[in-house]
Amino acid sequence: MSQTNTYNIAVVGATGAVGQKMLETLEDRNFPIKELKLLSSSRSAGKKMMYKGTEYTLEEATPESFDDVDIALFSAGGSVSKKLAPEAVKRGALVIDNTSAYRMDESVPLVVPEVNEEDIKNHNGIIANPNCSTIQMVAALEPIKQNLGMKRVIVSTYQAVSGAGNEAAEELREQSQAFLNGEELEASILPVSGDEKHFPIAFNALPQIDKFQENGYTFEEMKMINETKKIMHHSALHISATCVRLPFFTSHAESVYVEVEKDDVSVQQLKELVGSAPGIVLEDDPAVQSYPTPLSAAGKRDVFVGRIRKDLDHKNGFHLWVVSDNLLKGAAWNSVQIAERVVANQWL
Amino acid sequence: MSQTNTYNIAVVGATGAVGQKMLETLEDRNFPIKELKLLSSSRSAGKKMMYKGTEYTLEEATPESFDDVDIALFSAGGSVSKKLAPEAVKRGALVIDNTSAYRMDESVPLVVPEVNEEDIKNHNGIIANPNCSTIQMVAALEPIKQNLGMKRVIVSTYQAVSGAGNEAAEELREQSQAFLNGEELEASILPVSGDEKHFPIAFNALPQIDKFQENGYTFEEMKMINETKKIMHHSALHISATCVRLPFFTSHAESVYVEVEKDDVSVQQLKELVGSAPGIVLEDDPAVQSYPTPLSAAGKRDVFVGRIRKDLDHKNGFHLWVVSDNLLKGAAWNSVQIAERVVANQWL
Repeated sequence: MSQTNTYNIAVVGATGAVGQKMLETLEDRNFPIKELKLLSSSRSAGKKMMYKGTEYTLEEATPESFDDVDIALFSAGGSVSKKLAPEAVKRGALVIDNTSAYRMDESVPLVVPEVNEEDIKNHNGIIANPNCSTIQMVAALEPIKQNLGMKRVIVSTYQAVSGAGNEAAEELREQSQAFLNGEELEASILPVSGDEKHFPIAFNALPQIDKFQENGYTFEEMKMINETKKIMHHSALHISATCVRLPFFTSHAESVYVEVEKDDVSVQQLKELVGSAPGIVLEDDPAVQSYPTPLSAAGKRDVFVGRIRKDLDHKNGFHLWVVSDNLLKGAAWNSVQIAERVVANQWL
Repeated sequence: MSQTNTYNIAVVGATGAVGQKMLETLEDRNFPIKELKLLSSSRSAGKKMMYKGTEYTLEEATPESFDDVDIALFSAGGSVSKKLAPEAVKRGALVIDNTSAYRMDESVPLVVPEVNEEDIKNHNGIIANPNCSTIQMVAALEPIKQNLGMKRVIVSTYQAVSGAGNEAAEELREQSQAFLNGEELEASILPVSGDEKHFPIAFNALPQIDKFQENGYTFEEMKMINETKKIMHHSALHISATCVRLPFFTSHAESVYVEVEKDDVSVQQLKELVGSAPGIVLEDDPAVQSYPTPLSAAGKRDVFVGRIRKDLDHKNGFHLWVVSDNLLKGAAWNSVQIAERVVANQWL
């Protein structure tokens, strides 16, 4: 098997916010596709989507859809993955799953290629793509952990509505226009489409992403906590998270506090470490107001880091501002990147 | 002197975002005013504003404006306060200054009545009103410090554009409409009107409030750090801040991590402490998605606290979500509240 081989690829949930970006990313990366199959719910079956100038018709995803599929990219919700990923594996496909269904399953590697590419080798047919807010953070923290050791992380997030899907983005758009027109705001999607209450996101901030757990944390916060430990192979890490949904469409930003093990680390050292890490772009020069923002990072595959500075009281503490396109590195690009590493390393 | 006395009040910078709220708050509180004088720059002199149904004409602020004034509420920028506050004091007025001009001056009390009302007594003619993002945080932290001791604070803020004045709010409004129309965004105010570069705030997040200092922190972040220590009389406090401007009009929100000295404190204890403190409203029940947001706090004078939970790794660590109207408790109401305490305690 060589790099010039081509593969039968299925995209499950192609019409979703992430599914659309998966198609764009496969095209941008010129992924070696033999046959492309776009799968969806019965509701979306029959719809048309374009890939490299050719029109594809969506088919309803069934177990038999995966006959002859080499790699299946899933992004159609956890229940679809639970039901169909095992069927795809049974038929010989490698599943790269963008839902939370298998992330904490011990037999499933949870992969951010810049951090734990080697874990891919241990797959049993399924590789999980982490939560969007986790991916960009661990990519930025990995060079710190590798070189300085890492004891503690406290993160507060600033997350885009597109992480809750196309309907949430549409809700922000409609509410924003209503607000500017002086009209009443109607909320029916955010903070969580499946939860009881809905609050306006336009010109607001909602400190709830996903449902609440018994311990007072949301699932999104617990995902960041648990997934980070697993991806970084660092179960002893002290880590806490507060996740907040904000009125912008694309890119998550994160205010990250990190405590390193090594003493006497300078800001300059940290900037060099982070800036030379794969997949990271350092955008950090206060003298010329250089720092990343959600708008500046949107549409790009990299993770952008700025505002690196030392805690004024804790000698091993640093603060970072981490921004990345939640639909690209946070989802579609990380999934396609896993597929690229699988193919390049013949780990299929 | 009794509570039924009335006072000659001057509002300096009456046309600004905070000045307008000062007039509304004086009216809402039925402050015992004998004569009201609205002062401004020469540019705004001659404009009319309403107070209790009566039209007032703005006069240009000069040293002589303060003859016969009992209390002068300043909110017209640091340079105006630097120039005119001493002139007002010289003429016997008590100055309550909402700018950063005198906040860290050792001879000037920096006051949040719920925290350090007694400091008012030490004034030498000027009382400083703290930075908006500081006020709401110290109000929420005071019951914690008083009852449990407080070692460390790490805060990440979510700040409204009105903190940068009416022009910034107008910029958000115009950019938001342009974005929804698919037009190019023009930025000329935010993040800092006096800085070199400007970036769009609409559907974005800007990790810069005020200019950068040599140490990589912004002035806003250093204000939170230094003012908190002064107001709370806690110079040994370890505290760090990351301040971010967001696309909403009113109320700042804050993700606050706090480490207490006392061991074995439960979340329930912390909720009871915070919820029974003056000026604080506890809005915290994950089971029914109850938590404060910028929109829900706007127009109210209280500080709202929610999402109180224990850090999962640090036994003395807790996380809080603190929201308050930045123009009311963060500025106008805190200033008027100081004036009320001055009058009630005969500390003029």
